Amino acid sequence: MHSKFASRVNRVKSSETREILKVTERPEVISFAGGLPAPELFPIQPIQAASNAVLEENGAGSLQYSTTEGYIPLRTVICGRMKSIGIESDINKVLITSGSQQAIDLTGRLFLEEGDTIICESPTYLAAINAFKIYNPSFVEVEMDQDGMIMEELEDQLKKHPETKFIYTIPDFQNPTGRTMSRSRRERMIELANQYDVLIVEDNPYGAVRFAGEAIPPVKHFDTEGRVIYISTFSKIFAPGLRLGWICADELFIEKYVALKQSVDLHTDSFAQMITFKYMELYDIDAHIETIRAVYKDRCDVMLRCIDEFFPANVAHSVPEGGLFIWVELPKSLDSRKVLEECLKNHVAFVPGAPFFPNGKGNHTLRLNYSNMNEDRIVEGMRRIGEVLRQQIG
Amino acid sequence: MHSKFASRVNRVKSSETREILKVTERPEVISFAGGLPAPELFPIQPIQAASNAVLEENGAGSLQYSTTEGYIPLRTVICGRMKSIGIESDINKVLITSGSQQAIDLTGRLFLEEGDTIICESPTYLAAINAFKIYNPSFVEVEMDQDGMIMEELEDQLKKHPETKFIYTIPDFQNPTGRTMSRSRRERMIELANQYDVLIVEDNPYGAVRFAGEAIPPVKHFDTEGRVIYISTFSKIFAPGLRLGWICADELFIEKYVALKQSVDLHTDSFAQMITFKYMELYDIDAHIETIRAVYKDRCDVMLRCIDEFFPANVAHSVPEGGLFIWVELPKSLDSRKVLEECLKNHVAFVPGAPFFPNGKGNHTLRLNYSNMNEDRIVEGMRRIGEVLRQQIG
Repeated sequence: MHSKFASRVNRVKSSETREILKVTERPEVISFAGGLPAPELFPIQPIQAASNAVLEENGAGSLQYSTTEGYIPLRTVICGRMKSIGIESDINKVLITSGSQQAIDLTGRLFLEEGDTIICESPTYLAAINAFKIYNPSFVEVEMDQDGMIMEELEDQLKKHPETKFIYTIPDFQNPTGRTMSRSRRERMIELANQYDVLIVEDNPYGAVRFAGEAIPPVKHFDTEGRVIYISTFSKIFAPGLRLGWICADELFIEKYVALKQSVDLHTDSFAQMITFKYMELYDIDAHIETIRAVYKDRCDVMLRCIDEFFPANVAHSVPEGGLFIWVELPKSLDSRKVLEECLKNHVAFVPGAPFFPNGKGNHTLRLNYSNMNEDRIVEGMRRIGEVLRQQIG
Repeated sequence: MHSKFASRVNRVKSSETREILKVTERPEVISFAGGLPAPELFPIQPIQAASNAVLEENGAGSLQYSTTEGYIPLRTVICGRMKSIGIESDINKVLITSGSQQAIDLTGRLFLEEGDTIICESPTYLAAINAFKIYNPSFVEVEMDQDGMIMEELEDQLKKHPETKFIYTIPDFQNPTGRTMSRSRRERMIELANQYDVLIVEDNPYGAVRFAGEAIPPVKHFDTEGRVIYISTFSKIFAPGLRLGWICADELFIEKYVALKQSVDLHTDSFAQMITFKYMELYDIDAHIETIRAVYKDRCDVMLRCIDEFFPANVAHSVPEGGLFIWVELPKSLDSRKVLEECLKNHVAFVPGAPFFPNGKGNHTLRLNYSNMNEDRIVEGMRRIGEVLRQQIG
């Protein structure tokens, strides 16, 4: 009955990362592969208090069907939090989604026609590539340096590709590179989007987890024509298991997103929305985020020191100011998939970089996650990867 | 920037029902419009106990990212519950979805190509029509009688439409008609699906809420060639706000559904899945369902008596053996939208029937929900609708 499937299904495969993650579920494996937050930091007791308060105060409401747009008090708090980083909005510009992954998928569904072009950073977020692929666009990759996407190249590509629908960017502590786009480039990106009449999809899951350097306002802060669709999530600052993200965009767009979301899943879990709101009412989420930042900073520092200590000298890497990832470029003669095979025998894992390039390259690159392992395991895991690298470089 | 939208967006509109539901949120309105369970029956204290147990026993696990397939203990319990109604399965044949609405949307995504035909009951579930429309199929409606879809007409349509991808059916207490397909027709539907090489999508949200007559096994029970995609949900027997549904189908299909779901929302809320499992471990959900059945039976009986008492004699209606809805056919000279306009002035609401016919008809029909209002409000609301009907019939 294979013949029954729609052709779009051929464009979707179970991601390579996902298969690796299955291997890494074994407790003996030291995994730098996933993008998982540190579970020991989840505010379990406060969440329990918040759940109990929700059920006691408005139990029936939290368990009943609710509106597609999302819980108004939660959207109100989100508007306040966005204001503090430079985004002016109101609840009519905010839609609650079932994680930011849903926001990404709905964005593809709302905008992408077969043959449209998406311009993205090279490399870019794997699960966004997979979500957009369903709608059969072309991907045009723009090179990055330490300050993010290179604007001269972006302009060249916009000239070459008038069929571009949007620029997809992760400006803060990018997945997979950990790099951050400079302020001047954000301003320039808006100018270019206005000039070439394209949208910008700003995916910002990590922005709040900055542990070094100066905060830079989101690209949406500089938006002059309502061209930026801003996507964020509670997954990295609260609890990913609750699947809570949001889209902030002009009402013209949000109305359409709401109609699409209604047919996709009616609405996002009401109980999870009310717990998250109640938690922020009862507790100081910013103090909680400070804890996350401090722990991730230490883990990142340890991992960077291990690169210096254990990895061969001809290995390049990013130096993130926040987020969850370090990007590593091995000598071009090495294939990170082969390095991974050897590493798995030594019970240590990472994600090869190639799948993050939508048009295929980067065989010598890899992504390391530092948020999900404690410092001892980071040191031990990095030592093991270092050994494999030294052997393979020979 | 309207020009930026993909053309599929034009096929989606905010549903008529949804606009009516907004009006009915005002507390003075007696609403038979939505399909909402009775919130006073939600097991709030047991859910609180289950939430606390989950957070105390496995708090970090319930708040972390988890697998796309869903929580294994929950899938195991679902398999056991399906076995008790005649469906043989195992956890590899079950995918947890974010409500059954997501299962419907993923089904469209997995199977529908532009130009495919869906054969469905006439009328059928509005939100399924809207979800499938995104993929631009044709709808072929098959007439029903009190025993559900008429099989002779189904066969005629299968002959006429070799491009049919699947039959979409709600065999138990159908939405919107409340009708149930007989056992012999279920067997015949399987024979026809085998003969004409089409799939069957069996949507069964209400099956457990039977309060009269004899239980009939699901269509999937009679499935001989793995052609039935079975969709169900916890929304009508537990708590719709948690957004928990599932798909049961052959592994060949489930593998593809999983790959699609991964790009759509990664996975369904882990906390909600674990609460639902824990609730069923700690409490007797079947006893809870008995309570729901008893209350809905009484409300349905009251509503049926009110039709006899208050509605004009030339009004036809279904007599459901379960579920949430009664279907009403007014004299053909009446337009239920105009009746609704008048009713809303008297603070009573229902849903006009026309949107449930994908190709447009049924202006004289309407759907009444009895689960969400207590008996006093049912009597008062039905009295008011009866008055409007008598005036309009004149």
